[in-house]
Amino acid sequence: MAVYTQVSAEELAAFLARYDVGTLVSAKGIAEGVENTNYLVETTRGRFILTLYEKRVRPEDLPFFLALTDHLAATGLPVPPAIRDRAGEAIQRLCGRAACLITFLPGVALSQPTPAQARAAGDALARLHQAVGDFPLERPNSMGVDSWRPLFERCGAALDAIELGLHTAAAALVEAVSASWPAPGALPRCAIHADLFPDNLLMLGDRVTGLIDFYFACTDFRAYDLAVMHTAWSFSADGARYDTEIGRALMAGYQAIEPLTAAERAHLPALARGACLRFFLSRAWDWLNTPADALVTRKDPRAYLRRARHYASDDAFA
Amino acid sequence: MAVYTQVSAEELAAFLARYDVGTLVSAKGIAEGVENTNYLVETTRGRFILTLYEKRVRPEDLPFFLALTDHLAATGLPVPPAIRDRAGEAIQRLCGRAACLITFLPGVALSQPTPAQARAAGDALARLHQAVGDFPLERPNSMGVDSWRPLFERCGAALDAIELGLHTAAAALVEAVSASWPAPGALPRCAIHADLFPDNLLMLGDRVTGLIDFYFACTDFRAYDLAVMHTAWSFSADGARYDTEIGRALMAGYQAIEPLTAAERAHLPALARGACLRFFLSRAWDWLNTPADALVTRKDPRAYLRRARHYASDDAFA
Repeated sequence: MAVYTQVSAEELAAFLARYDVGTLVSAKGIAEGVENTNYLVETTRGRFILTLYEKRVRPEDLPFFLALTDHLAATGLPVPPAIRDRAGEAIQRLCGRAACLITFLPGVALSQPTPAQARAAGDALARLHQAVGDFPLERPNSMGVDSWRPLFERCGAALDAIELGLHTAAAALVEAVSASWPAPGALPRCAIHADLFPDNLLMLGDRVTGLIDFYFACTDFRAYDLAVMHTAWSFSADGARYDTEIGRALMAGYQAIEPLTAAERAHLPALARGACLRFFLSRAWDWLNTPADALVTRKDPRAYLRRARHYASDDAFA
Repeated sequence: MAVYTQVSAEELAAFLARYDVGTLVSAKGIAEGVENTNYLVETTRGRFILTLYEKRVRPEDLPFFLALTDHLAATGLPVPPAIRDRAGEAIQRLCGRAACLITFLPGVALSQPTPAQARAAGDALARLHQAVGDFPLERPNSMGVDSWRPLFERCGAALDAIELGLHTAAAALVEAVSASWPAPGALPRCAIHADLFPDNLLMLGDRVTGLIDFYFACTDFRAYDLAVMHTAWSFSADGARYDTEIGRALMAGYQAIEPLTAAERAHLPALARGACLRFFLSRAWDWLNTPADALVTRKDPRAYLRRARHYASDDAFA
């Protein structure tokens, strides 16, 4: 969300010389993505995103992320592949960070998607799941179901400093999610994006032009990926108001390409409550551990407890 | 240096519809310039910088800044003019801020200019001063000589919290600058940039492709503009090491186009000490009034007291 690492024009020009991409024409630090530093770079041959990986992305996970984006791009999905240098390397070092030069994609991230745009987004997720049918790599979900109780315990009583009663409410959600979570073999699994919020989807009009920011991608239930998206897209920012039309359009867009199994449909509310817990916990942790005036904008975790309530109802996906 | 105001894709698309610039293709918040919010915007017809003016730029000064950049662009200098909307207006409102859509210029700001690049920069400043010969508007220098003693007094004894002894050293510089400052009519005056640091000059190789960020522009001694540039370009970042070659190249580049008068040459060291005081004071004020972990990177003001020492010598410009 900020430029953490300054790359000088001279360092950048020398870095680009490793590649067959022309010479530097323009470079602007951009405020985008998870906690990485990003530059929008123009050369005589095209435009690129230069990403320097800061603390949140572990360098040892990069080969998985890049293999996945390469695989998806090769199937024709609008996913930006990393550029190889002349020696065939995609992962570099720059200014003491792991760094990649990535294809630039047009399109804008929406703040208030329409139902037609939500439908296109659901369609894109389904095509992503189709495309990974033959993707061979696996990565455990480091922010998955097994991580939630330990993270809840690390937040601990401090949750009540955000709002009195939050610790009790979160404990109840941890119990409810644990009790209803499907067994690992109960539902179809594949490589998932795991964070397909509106900011990670670029669109022009109703057309998806980019699926970006695969830095939480992992192997998990494909229906969990859809549940994450449903919780992220279908509510007002404070989580108080569910938008039936958006929710329905997302589901319809997805199922027109990849119909869910009966087991997936039955487990969707539980998966969505899990998704709410996951984002509640990571936001709560960041809230408790980020100074109020830091570079990163803190997001109110309570919006995700409110969303979780919606999924307690039988017709949450109706 | 950060994105202070978030503009959604939907708001941006609606904003662009006022102009004859095509439709939105991409928008990235960029970390650039003084305390404004900037987006690099691509449309079906070109690229633009969208600037939203935050607290540091007063909206009532915008007509002067825009008239100046328009005037300079019309003479063929690489200065980015603001785009007019269909009603002929350049200054707009967006998200509660004054806002302008500005032509995008290629080029990169350098961190370590070479002598050839410094020469080109001096040349560009001289051409700017030539081009404003018939520019009719005036704006007092709000960060000029009359502002320095009051700003020093507002900083007060707190300067010693930055480093013990700084208040005494700054007081001596205030006195020295006041005693040696030329009378208003003593030297040629014109519209000046007043802040032509390396970050406000875009280059490709040794060619100047952009003069940007005119938000301190005002009417003052033209030689003061050159002095500001000399103090900004010719030293190591900590101010401890003067680079004779860079200093000479800047002066040579300027004087090949616009030779200084004997009076200007005689007053250059005093003007440069004034420039050092101006940047020392604004940085010290920001240092004392900015939380250490705020969005804006604080710059060490002491680098400018060190630079001022260089200009006490008779051969400061030799």
